[in-house]
Amino acid sequence: MKSSLRRGHVNIEDVEPQVDCGRYRAKAIIGDLVTVRADIYRDGPAVLAATVRFRGPDDKRWSEARMVHVDNDRWTGAFRPDRIGVWEYGIEAWTDRFATWRRDLKARVEADQVMDLELQEGAQILEDHLRALPSSERKTVKQAIASLRAPAEQEGAASSFEDPRITAPLDEHIAELISKHHTRAGSSVTKPVLQLTVDRALARFGAWYEFFPRSTGHEGEHGTLTTAVDELDRIASMGFDIVYLPPIHPIGTTWRKGRNNSLDPGPADVGVPWAIGGEDGGHTAVHPDLGTIDDFDTFLKEADKRGLEIALDFAIQCSPDHPWVTEHPEWFMHRPDGSIKYAENPPKRYQDIYPINFDTEDREGLWRELKGILDFWIGHGVTIFRVDNPHTKALPFWEWAITTIKAEHPEVILLSEAFTRPKVMKGLAKIGFTQSYTYFTWRNTKAELTEYLTELAATDMAQYFKPNFFANTPDILHEYLQTGGRPAFKIRLVLAALLSPSYGIYSGYELCESTPVKPGSEEYLDSEKYQVSQRDYDAEGNLNRYVTRINRIRRAYPVLEHLTNLVFHDVDTPNLMAFSKSLPGETPILAVVNLNPYHWEEGTLTLNLEALGLDPWDTFKVHDLISDETYEWQGAQAYVRLDPFHEPAHVFRVLK
Amino acid sequence: MKSSLRRGHVNIEDVEPQVDCGRYRAKAIIGDLVTVRADIYRDGPAVLAATVRFRGPDDKRWSEARMVHVDNDRWTGAFRPDRIGVWEYGIEAWTDRFATWRRDLKARVEADQVMDLELQEGAQILEDHLRALPSSERKTVKQAIASLRAPAEQEGAASSFEDPRITAPLDEHIAELISKHHTRAGSSVTKPVLQLTVDRALARFGAWYEFFPRSTGHEGEHGTLTTAVDELDRIASMGFDIVYLPPIHPIGTTWRKGRNNSLDPGPADVGVPWAIGGEDGGHTAVHPDLGTIDDFDTFLKEADKRGLEIALDFAIQCSPDHPWVTEHPEWFMHRPDGSIKYAENPPKRYQDIYPINFDTEDREGLWRELKGILDFWIGHGVTIFRVDNPHTKALPFWEWAITTIKAEHPEVILLSEAFTRPKVMKGLAKIGFTQSYTYFTWRNTKAELTEYLTELAATDMAQYFKPNFFANTPDILHEYLQTGGRPAFKIRLVLAALLSPSYGIYSGYELCESTPVKPGSEEYLDSEKYQVSQRDYDAEGNLNRYVTRINRIRRAYPVLEHLTNLVFHDVDTPNLMAFSKSLPGETPILAVVNLNPYHWEEGTLTLNLEALGLDPWDTFKVHDLISDETYEWQGAQAYVRLDPFHEPAHVFRVLK
Repeated sequence: MKSSLRRGHVNIEDVEPQVDCGRYRAKAIIGDLVTVRADIYRDGPAVLAATVRFRGPDDKRWSEARMVHVDNDRWTGAFRPDRIGVWEYGIEAWTDRFATWRRDLKARVEADQVMDLELQEGAQILEDHLRALPSSERKTVKQAIASLRAPAEQEGAASSFEDPRITAPLDEHIAELISKHHTRAGSSVTKPVLQLTVDRALARFGAWYEFFPRSTGHEGEHGTLTTAVDELDRIASMGFDIVYLPPIHPIGTTWRKGRNNSLDPGPADVGVPWAIGGEDGGHTAVHPDLGTIDDFDTFLKEADKRGLEIALDFAIQCSPDHPWVTEHPEWFMHRPDGSIKYAENPPKRYQDIYPINFDTEDREGLWRELKGILDFWIGHGVTIFRVDNPHTKALPFWEWAITTIKAEHPEVILLSEAFTRPKVMKGLAKIGFTQSYTYFTWRNTKAELTEYLTELAATDMAQYFKPNFFANTPDILHEYLQTGGRPAFKIRLVLAALLSPSYGIYSGYELCESTPVKPGSEEYLDSEKYQVSQRDYDAEGNLNRYVTRINRIRRAYPVLEHLTNLVFHDVDTPNLMAFSKSLPGETPILAVVNLNPYHWEEGTLTLNLEALGLDPWDTFKVHDLISDETYEWQGAQAYVRLDPFHEPAHVFRVLK
Repeated sequence: MKSSLRRGHVNIEDVEPQVDCGRYRAKAIIGDLVTVRADIYRDGPAVLAATVRFRGPDDKRWSEARMVHVDNDRWTGAFRPDRIGVWEYGIEAWTDRFATWRRDLKARVEADQVMDLELQEGAQILEDHLRALPSSERKTVKQAIASLRAPAEQEGAASSFEDPRITAPLDEHIAELISKHHTRAGSSVTKPVLQLTVDRALARFGAWYEFFPRSTGHEGEHGTLTTAVDELDRIASMGFDIVYLPPIHPIGTTWRKGRNNSLDPGPADVGVPWAIGGEDGGHTAVHPDLGTIDDFDTFLKEADKRGLEIALDFAIQCSPDHPWVTEHPEWFMHRPDGSIKYAENPPKRYQDIYPINFDTEDREGLWRELKGILDFWIGHGVTIFRVDNPHTKALPFWEWAITTIKAEHPEVILLSEAFTRPKVMKGLAKIGFTQSYTYFTWRNTKAELTEYLTELAATDMAQYFKPNFFANTPDILHEYLQTGGRPAFKIRLVLAALLSPSYGIYSGYELCESTPVKPGSEEYLDSEKYQVSQRDYDAEGNLNRYVTRINRIRRAYPVLEHLTNLVFHDVDTPNLMAFSKSLPGETPILAVVNLNPYHWEEGTLTLNLEALGLDPWDTFKVHDLISDETYEWQGAQAYVRLDPFHEPAHVFRVLK
């Protein structure tokens, strides 16, 4: 609560984007038009002017973008970050004396009230600004001053817009010129400076594919990073952008789990990749059965050749055999007898996992070592990390680590794999995670999807939380997929890929794998988490072509790269859902999806035509990019019928 | 954007109350329970604890009030300010190790998993806290430690709640004790400290009555502060709390306005009280025709005897005859010929008024002089000011002046008379005005009233904006009153007095004065602003008894002192509106108002029974405090019929 005799004379409030009063950074993508909004007002009827001040990483000087008044004292301005990294921005607002004089003069002219003194006043304001003008412009302004100072041709002649004394000073060019170079005496500047993380395009828009390299072997053999290369052509040809690998590090043997999470593994059991660390090393080592660090480098190169980026898993936990257990026992939690605590969520016990004590006395040593793991893999060319259960690790650690890493490597993308309470999910995004897993897998009805997507796309969350819709994961095989058959897999793929700019599938999805370990469980039977699984990706009923088509559509239509442009359209039946994405100058995409995988549904679609850039009586065509059929529609209403056993979704491009 | 290795391990976000990220103070009334809310969370499943820290004016030490978790990581705590002035508050949150251990132990017991080591761990935590406990409590805790350390009576015996080793340590008393004295290592404290202006009760709840002292003379004579005393009994007996006087200072003669705002006054015309200043002085002088400063002191004393407080008008503007015009010409705005600028809103001109230049070079001299005016009247015992058009004066001045005045005289109440754009109205309340005039006079339909009251009572505005609903003012005679007759005056009185804790009328309202100066104008004919008007307050058709009854109801039912307890109830016809106010332990008041002053209306009322503290099948009585009739109702629905020519409103007390 500050008050002073010298405060600026304009109030600037409710600046957007702004996350928790500027405590956290908002997010944007390079090339985005970042729109900055604020309430700007002062006492009295004076005309105001305002500008967004912004600067990119390492810029010393501020650039400016003029703001305009929209409505109800809300102003808007925008800038377009052209580099990734941390940008800063704020607002400066001031009183425009000349614009105020000009507005008032017009009102006086219209009321036949112009007096010589008012013209002298305008001349004085122009004179006050002469020095600030570029020398090339001074002549024009001097002429305007001279005409204001000229004696009236006859008494009362100044009361019309034809009066030569006011024609020049009321000219638009002079108004713009003075506005641009107007003194900012008494201006207000927002404090403190706000920050914006500007990321590369893949931070928002990308198709992810997850697979276990150890499952790429032939004829039952343990796969390697070398055999994993063989999968890359298939994945790239389906149109994916990012390949995400579960941990590739040595796996502990103590308390190793067997197939289907059994506690009595056999000697051939390969263990869980998230039980990291063994005699062959920890988080910076490659599991010997997968190959060497050189094999990893080769794998990365091969991926790069095919336009794929690799995302590694970053899971901060250790098997009892991790080197840190002996080298740094102080980094773990201990029980009264000195033994190291395994992970628990009483009464559940996870003896194969030792959690880290982020509040250890050697906090600095531990935190730097952990960040060093990211540095190690960044050194090998990895810039995307899927972070395992970040919500069970200290949030202050993440804030420090991500801030530090992004300062050094702004290209790094971190995906938060947190499935927890809403505020914690949001908190992780606020403290710096680039992308986040979501509740998408558990949102299956039209009401659930509409409510959740509205929260993600049309609330404050959109400023900092970038969703990544995984349709399945090794941990989540939703009942909808277990029971809905092939149509369910198509439906959920379309929803994930078109609702969210980033989405992903875990391998097997394209084969419609749907058998749970037991009824009521979301775990897979014979889960790859505990064993090697080999697949025939060309098996009958595969969705390879469908996935490929959807990914092609994603790449072909720029409207799908965004989230906040999502609009829902009404369909008068609960199982049919319609949504679109549009952008100025781009072809809109309109999807209509039958959410019922068991039966056809029909209904009347009522379009929000304005959202599609259409006038109420426009005739327009919609071309289904799945079926290749074209319909001619007029007005807001259209009949739709979708049979899941034929095609459960229309994905229309809207042709005006 | 701070990140550090040493940040507290709990996140605290979205603290309420908080106005514009703490830039402005929230408001409360002495004795209010101030509820503080925040999102509080950390990583992992640990049990958290949190407290509101608060301190009153001049307190060096912080007091604390424990917070509890409500839902979805939202916590709440409360404190009750017992003094007026500026209070400070914040939140501290930490991890409760003992509560976490206790919760986990229970889960282990239920799962037959308790191991000796876990009991040792609990003993260790208790030992760590022994020193922090009051010595009287140490014995109990030592016993609990001893039982945890005791050997099991038999193998596995610890797995039941009957195990004597865990009975004591799981005891509620120990849990509360340790919770209270728990170490706060790694706690987080919100920064910066938030502030709250705590005002006296009259800042929120009061009935205002406005009259012109000069109109209290007899037989056409100019009234004085002495004749004005004669009005006080009448006003007090009607149940008003505050008497507001338009400016009582000398009135300028240059450019003086005549009757009905004419520009050719006669020698007998008294001028506009807001054209302040003449040869007899300025803002600290009393108009000689009204009397002397001693007469004013007497007037104040007489008001005080009758339980009335006096509100003076503070209008920062001058007539051309104000002493400052010669003593401080630099405080005004000047035209190029050196003459002082009169007020304008082109093409409108107000030659009788010179506005002040708040941005003058002698800003400090001017601002201190202006504040000195308030100091002068405060010195004479005035602590309530109605501030004229504050939105045309520098907002930074108000923020400085109000902050400074309130620091010295926290009992001062300032009512902002701004009728301007919404953001500016809100801004004035944020920078410190205690109360605000509103758009109430222009909200006459059910939809308009419901929308506006919902904004005032149920949005962020309620944290800082305290409405004062004037049913009329010398400037505003709404068309609804001009055409609606006596029923309209009753309707608007009930609405103003029961919807808003503070409300007011300008004299003549009780006589249903309704003649505008011309059709389409909201100005009164023969307005007292320009002339002396004498009235017969006992004239036929007066509302004196009605006003008295409404003010008595206001004083009798504490639920009417509040705004945020307002709830609207559905009535199935547009012209009938129903609303209630309730508080725990107090009798609810339910009003049903016919907004149509021309015709009876009937309809079905559907009550929000929960808001009235009623169960769905309760039978209850409603007693109309206007008609004295009692009805027995059951359930949510009731038939209502209101004839404006009989009584346009029910004001029920709800009897359970």
